[in-house]
Amino acid sequence: MRGIERVRGRVGEINDLLCAVNLLTWDARTQMPPGAAAARGKQLATLSKVARERLLSRELLGALQEARAEDVTPAEADELDQLTGALELLERLPDGLIEALAEHRSVAQAAWERARADADMSAFAPALERMLELQQRMAQAIGYDDHPYDALVGLYEPGMTAARLQELFGALRGGILPLLEGIRASGVVADRRFLQRHYPEGAQRDAALHFAKLIGYDLGRGRLDVSAHPFEISFTRDDVRITTRFRRDFLPMSLFGTLHEAGHALYEQGVDPAYVRTALTTDVPGLYAVAGTSYGTHESQSRLWENLVGRSRPFWRAHFGALRSFFPEQLADVDAEGFYRAVNHVEPSLIRVEADEVTYNLHIMLRVEIEMALLDGSLSVRELPAAWNDAVGATLGLDVPDDAQGCLQDIHWSTGLFGSFPTYTIGNVMSAQWLEAARAQDPAIAAALERGETEPLRAWLQENVYRHGRRFAPDALLERATGRGLTPEPYLAYLDGKYGELYRS
Amino acid sequence: MRGIERVRGRVGEINDLLCAVNLLTWDARTQMPPGAAAARGKQLATLSKVARERLLSRELLGALQEARAEDVTPAEADELDQLTGALELLERLPDGLIEALAEHRSVAQAAWERARADADMSAFAPALERMLELQQRMAQAIGYDDHPYDALVGLYEPGMTAARLQELFGALRGGILPLLEGIRASGVVADRRFLQRHYPEGAQRDAALHFAKLIGYDLGRGRLDVSAHPFEISFTRDDVRITTRFRRDFLPMSLFGTLHEAGHALYEQGVDPAYVRTALTTDVPGLYAVAGTSYGTHESQSRLWENLVGRSRPFWRAHFGALRSFFPEQLADVDAEGFYRAVNHVEPSLIRVEADEVTYNLHIMLRVEIEMALLDGSLSVRELPAAWNDAVGATLGLDVPDDAQGCLQDIHWSTGLFGSFPTYTIGNVMSAQWLEAARAQDPAIAAALERGETEPLRAWLQENVYRHGRRFAPDALLERATGRGLTPEPYLAYLDGKYGELYRS
Repeated sequence: MRGIERVRGRVGEINDLLCAVNLLTWDARTQMPPGAAAARGKQLATLSKVARERLLSRELLGALQEARAEDVTPAEADELDQLTGALELLERLPDGLIEALAEHRSVAQAAWERARADADMSAFAPALERMLELQQRMAQAIGYDDHPYDALVGLYEPGMTAARLQELFGALRGGILPLLEGIRASGVVADRRFLQRHYPEGAQRDAALHFAKLIGYDLGRGRLDVSAHPFEISFTRDDVRITTRFRRDFLPMSLFGTLHEAGHALYEQGVDPAYVRTALTTDVPGLYAVAGTSYGTHESQSRLWENLVGRSRPFWRAHFGALRSFFPEQLADVDAEGFYRAVNHVEPSLIRVEADEVTYNLHIMLRVEIEMALLDGSLSVRELPAAWNDAVGATLGLDVPDDAQGCLQDIHWSTGLFGSFPTYTIGNVMSAQWLEAARAQDPAIAAALERGETEPLRAWLQENVYRHGRRFAPDALLERATGRGLTPEPYLAYLDGKYGELYRS
Repeated sequence: MRGIERVRGRVGEINDLLCAVNLLTWDARTQMPPGAAAARGKQLATLSKVARERLLSRELLGALQEARAEDVTPAEADELDQLTGALELLERLPDGLIEALAEHRSVAQAAWERARADADMSAFAPALERMLELQQRMAQAIGYDDHPYDALVGLYEPGMTAARLQELFGALRGGILPLLEGIRASGVVADRRFLQRHYPEGAQRDAALHFAKLIGYDLGRGRLDVSAHPFEISFTRDDVRITTRFRRDFLPMSLFGTLHEAGHALYEQGVDPAYVRTALTTDVPGLYAVAGTSYGTHESQSRLWENLVGRSRPFWRAHFGALRSFFPEQLADVDAEGFYRAVNHVEPSLIRVEADEVTYNLHIMLRVEIEMALLDGSLSVRELPAAWNDAVGATLGLDVPDDAQGCLQDIHWSTGLFGSFPTYTIGNVMSAQWLEAARAQDPAIAAALERGETEPLRAWLQENVYRHGRRFAPDALLERATGRGLTPEPYLAYLDGKYGELYRS
């Protein structure tokens, strides 16, 4: 058997194990009875451990070495390069560190939950300090040139660095802050009260499924469930599941939440079938079965479908009638334009996950700058709340009443996800870049979107993004499809065009 | 670290892998989208393979050898003995045979499905012949003294043999056939038409959950779903799930089906917490995470709760009011006695899974005798349909119109479960033995059951059966609790008492 075939056999089994991890995770968040949490934790730990052992086994390393000397296709060469790089990275991480992180994660998360419930940062500070220390050790082990952040953000967004982020953030602030100023000054306020009428859960579910299918989500290879925090997760391209949550007195949560997760799902469902169970649908250093090439690229798809398509005027001009058919009484006195304006209301707020498109990135940027400073030691955990509150005041113009609505609001730091926040903003920026390129390359796509028809856009994304899985790093994927790497202009132009028109005083 | 601790660490991980196999299986049968079947098959195969590799690893065998030389408690000694025996058995099975079986199973099952759909035995015969050959090789590899069947039935029911079964069957036929004759002659026919009124699915689900909880099923560590074929499955004692199916025009299916699966679940939920993730909750040779000590013992619990309790007169005298509260219109003109008589209707029929308590074991005995003859070569696959039809005529007094309603009706032979059929009858026989012992040992149990209170019985079973998990083989468990091994008298006495009274002419 050729080396590459033996590599594929081994990686296929590792992917199977990681798909099982994903299923156990999905089940824990959607179906599992409450008494099972401890047992499930052990099962997840064992499966991850076995996957890691098999990744670093002599059999795989030997087969990989052999395969790299063989004649292979360009796609196979990319597959082997990726695997080699990922294994080199994994080998740099000492066993003790990974175990210490896994162990501290549950401690820190429990401390964070208590701290947030009591709005008491002191209950989380020691656990956060220990987490930071582990993250710093992780960054050292991975290695970096300029800033420890480079090592961590690279786990989620290959090729991204602190310096590139700072440049990107400068450009974004330069566009967003004046736009927000103009919105504030306009005095325009859309009527949003109808969004808070009584929307029965059953009809919300039907509507959510209708719109998920409309944009191309294949329910023959997926399903929609309910969870406290919505997510998308896949066990190969043939089983890609999404969840949502229903608020009976607020329609947008399930509607746009489902479009968001369905956007993630289109990416996973669209990967080339030939890549299934290979390194091109496995995040090897992250030990995660996923087809998307980076967190930011994945987020670019959820944001594109939720916001750039799902909150656009032509989309609702075409589909508001369908939405109203699910809620004939609640939406009787509303029209497409009124709905469009209501779901694009802009207003600075304290909580990231409730933020609108214009202010959202301000939330991300302040977090990223704080975690960079925590990591390089220029900010201490003791100074964190004040730094947070200052940044919120300076960018959003708000006072933070307590840490629960401030620096304790997100779970990320307690689970050790330092370096993942930027991917939300990268996703936003990238989403506009895809859309601009698709429209420019094929006028039929732009014309179809004007009629609310999304299939030509999906087909373009399928061809240029989805099918490639993890074969190309984010910048390379962007360059192939749009002619340049990550750049903020399309996104800023999108925001300016849309919100400048909506909030013209 | 002591040897036994290293054994436990290894077995715990194997149990985690097998619990993951169970979850993937549960999901495939209750939640999975249709497109995912092929990918799921690969994932299941990999997890089973990894579990088997780790079972036969040098690390585990070395730790086990060391542990057997250490000072251990009696329970630990039983744990090590079981594991040793199971590994010796596993080592006797050649790799090639296990793979050939796994491969042929899907071929044979597909052939059986086609054959049953067309009532065409010739479409299944070649696959069955090959399956028989593999089963014979399996029996040879395992080894036996008298009959190849001994090797196979022992996989499901340790200690059982063809000779013991033949003796048991003789006693059962001697009691059941005259009883059935009397029932036929009595001319008594209960009114059952009300069971086929319209019973909405939602109310059936509520009622099923009510009665499952009533007998002690803990929903904090379980849940009820829908599947084509009802089953119980566990991922440790803290997550034991059951399924049912609803026929809107036939109430007993979901009601008694749920009591049956909840009976299985009580066993799994009741195992000693100290046995979790050990060999005492792992079917090592079968590569299956399960706490019950044998298929027959497991079935004794489902049958006890479904039939001996759930189809008893005092149970419905106490709880028919509750049942009627779920179906006030459908059951308005029915009383407890009428319901009791309707759900204990006896009538020979062609299909095993639809059979009543009296005729059920006749279905099993004819299957077991046929599979013994197939295995020892005294019956050929070509002669099978005629042998089946003759046996149905002789014991049930019925003509078999076609093989779909005859020898093609059960999935078991196509999946290689030769030797598992007897466990259904063993379960029936054992169920009466438990109940007789519980009543005799504690008159308060008998008195409570007369009032429809089942908790004292459950507590006795918890103490005498459930908590022990797989620590004792079936006969040893029976002897400890009832003073004797498997014996048919209590079961025959139960049938005679119940049906003699119901069908007194």
